[in-house]
Amino acid sequence: MDYGEEAIRRHRETRGKVSIASKMAVETLDDLSIAYTPGVASVCMVIAGDKSESYQLTNRANTIAIVTDGSAVLGLGNIGPEAAMPVMEGKSILFKTLADVDAYPICLATQDTDAIIQTVRYLAPSFGGINLEDIAAPRCFEIEDALQDLGIPVFHDDQHGTAIVVLAGVINSLNVTGRRFEDTKFVFSGAGAGGIASTKLLLDYGARNITLVDSTGIIHRNRTGLTSVKTSMLETTNPENLQGDLADALKGADVFIGLSVAEAMTPEMVSSMAKDSIVFAMANPIPEIMPELAQAAGAAVVGTGRSDFPNQINNSLAFPGIFRGALDIRATRVTTKMKLAAAEALAALVAEPTPECIIPWSLDRAVAQVVAKAVADAA
Amino acid sequence: MDYGEEAIRRHRETRGKVSIASKMAVETLDDLSIAYTPGVASVCMVIAGDKSESYQLTNRANTIAIVTDGSAVLGLGNIGPEAAMPVMEGKSILFKTLADVDAYPICLATQDTDAIIQTVRYLAPSFGGINLEDIAAPRCFEIEDALQDLGIPVFHDDQHGTAIVVLAGVINSLNVTGRRFEDTKFVFSGAGAGGIASTKLLLDYGARNITLVDSTGIIHRNRTGLTSVKTSMLETTNPENLQGDLADALKGADVFIGLSVAEAMTPEMVSSMAKDSIVFAMANPIPEIMPELAQAAGAAVVGTGRSDFPNQINNSLAFPGIFRGALDIRATRVTTKMKLAAAEALAALVAEPTPECIIPWSLDRAVAQVVAKAVADAA
Repeated sequence: MDYGEEAIRRHRETRGKVSIASKMAVETLDDLSIAYTPGVASVCMVIAGDKSESYQLTNRANTIAIVTDGSAVLGLGNIGPEAAMPVMEGKSILFKTLADVDAYPICLATQDTDAIIQTVRYLAPSFGGINLEDIAAPRCFEIEDALQDLGIPVFHDDQHGTAIVVLAGVINSLNVTGRRFEDTKFVFSGAGAGGIASTKLLLDYGARNITLVDSTGIIHRNRTGLTSVKTSMLETTNPENLQGDLADALKGADVFIGLSVAEAMTPEMVSSMAKDSIVFAMANPIPEIMPELAQAAGAAVVGTGRSDFPNQINNSLAFPGIFRGALDIRATRVTTKMKLAAAEALAALVAEPTPECIIPWSLDRAVAQVVAKAVADAA
Repeated sequence: MDYGEEAIRRHRETRGKVSIASKMAVETLDDLSIAYTPGVASVCMVIAGDKSESYQLTNRANTIAIVTDGSAVLGLGNIGPEAAMPVMEGKSILFKTLADVDAYPICLATQDTDAIIQTVRYLAPSFGGINLEDIAAPRCFEIEDALQDLGIPVFHDDQHGTAIVVLAGVINSLNVTGRRFEDTKFVFSGAGAGGIASTKLLLDYGARNITLVDSTGIIHRNRTGLTSVKTSMLETTNPENLQGDLADALKGADVFIGLSVAEAMTPEMVSSMAKDSIVFAMANPIPEIMPELAQAAGAAVVGTGRSDFPNQINNSLAFPGIFRGALDIRATRVTTKMKLAAAEALAALVAEPTPECIIPWSLDRAVAQVVAKAVADAA
């Protein structure tokens, strides 16, 4: 099937994917008097007396906003807020279908950092959480950091959703290939939002040797012109201060994590890695290297972002359960402890990991529940 | 039934009234590849090439935002954004139930005029229209005026929804009592958003003699300290430059329109009006005068805002159909012509007006369709 053509046809047929549903009937005058005036005035006054009642008397406790500025949509780049909507609607129905979270897609007509921060602050009373989405780095870091005091969880999925699923996949892959975190050499291709957040979470979990490579080459201490975020990552990465390009970084490495561009990796690079290497080639839709090539070149475990190969390392394994858990306990933030618990729970869902199965299936209905419980317990 | 107690109980039971529904199944990997990646990328790129495709490929064409700052909620006043939500959710389910419009309630944590204007501009790409709601005057006028260039209809329901329903009720009441617009003396109690918009629409329809009375008394040319909006209304109202209080204004008047406070009108005032007078006492929940008192004092037609008396003059007769019609034809504004057409259509829905029936029933499912068609035809 040509998914692109079929997707256009189906979206045109249904005019998008999201709608509003009513949880209360308005058929009779009594209904109207309870759902609307005059009865609703009493409901308002309860909340006016105690704002936290908005979590009991409105849908706030089950509602998040998916907020984007359309600046980094999938691998398509800065396509703007209108064009970002199909992705946000897609996330919304995944939230609903997988975790019964009501997620409103909101695509903003500004790419100004302060304006986005301020707008999210203004929107907050209507929501129990904010999922930031497809906002370009480094703006995404600034926005998320600035909003951690909002009183409701603000979670940038491209960073942490990715990091959680990558960590889960790594836990099982190291298990399958008989490695320990502290002895494993990781190389990232891509130092954007997902790469940096994944690096941080792997470090939090015990990784000691991670090297980041961006489109210019290895991020090392002698490089000039680095962004402040990349510079700060050097405090905890590239312990040997490797220099050169991706091929240089990968010599003898155990794990490749690709969050970059199509065909960034060659079979020769895989062959230069340690025996029984692990390759997560997650560029979408065309991976850094196709699975069959990576395997032929010696990789023991291969994952991609795609649903048509084994080991799909997909954010949708994380974000529904993360927000389900956070909303269930009315968390005010998603902490590192909650993210680590989510990754461990995801990994543990695979009872007996094998090279072909290091991560649960994307649409497994049990996943969000298990992740939600782990997140809630860890909070 | 104590509607307040029952409303609190029901809202607590259901945790509010609004949820999200998915219009596309995500059960299989094919579903996921069509609704989300990789297929959705093609949908995004169609919109990136032509933004107007967002009306065909997302739910935008059926989606509006109900935006409030919580500063003038029902008759409750400035109770803030969290406490305003039950009313906004109520409007949302009325939009959905009566006109199949998907309306997201958004309660903003700011009451700054410029901030609200800017926020609505940022939100616009996600929506096909904006219903402003329960924002205090004169801020509501400024916000609505400033946003008329947004490219999607921006409609302040407390002004125009009220005005449309009042005009519809007046058309049939004048008919029933054998009056003509140009010969009728109108007196308003209340010169807020609803009173001023209703006055303007009555003038547009042919009224020539309208006097506005606010909490200080009659608005006349010798009064000082008037807001600029009230001053400007003197260009078209109070032709005889009446002075004094509500009782003075009502002597010999034909129509009383109350959008003010409980019990502002006495039986003596009704008796002082012209024979077969018309009294719309719409203060909520307690009218300016109770219907039985007004009738006993000589009123021929009495309407209120309440569902438990005949002639409920309720915005819900207008707003669902207004936006249904505007969205159906992708109107960029709601013009005066569209508002007049809506009022005429509403009035005409009552085949044979009588003193007890000058306006359709609030939950009549045919109303929104008829109003929508009239609005679309007039655009």
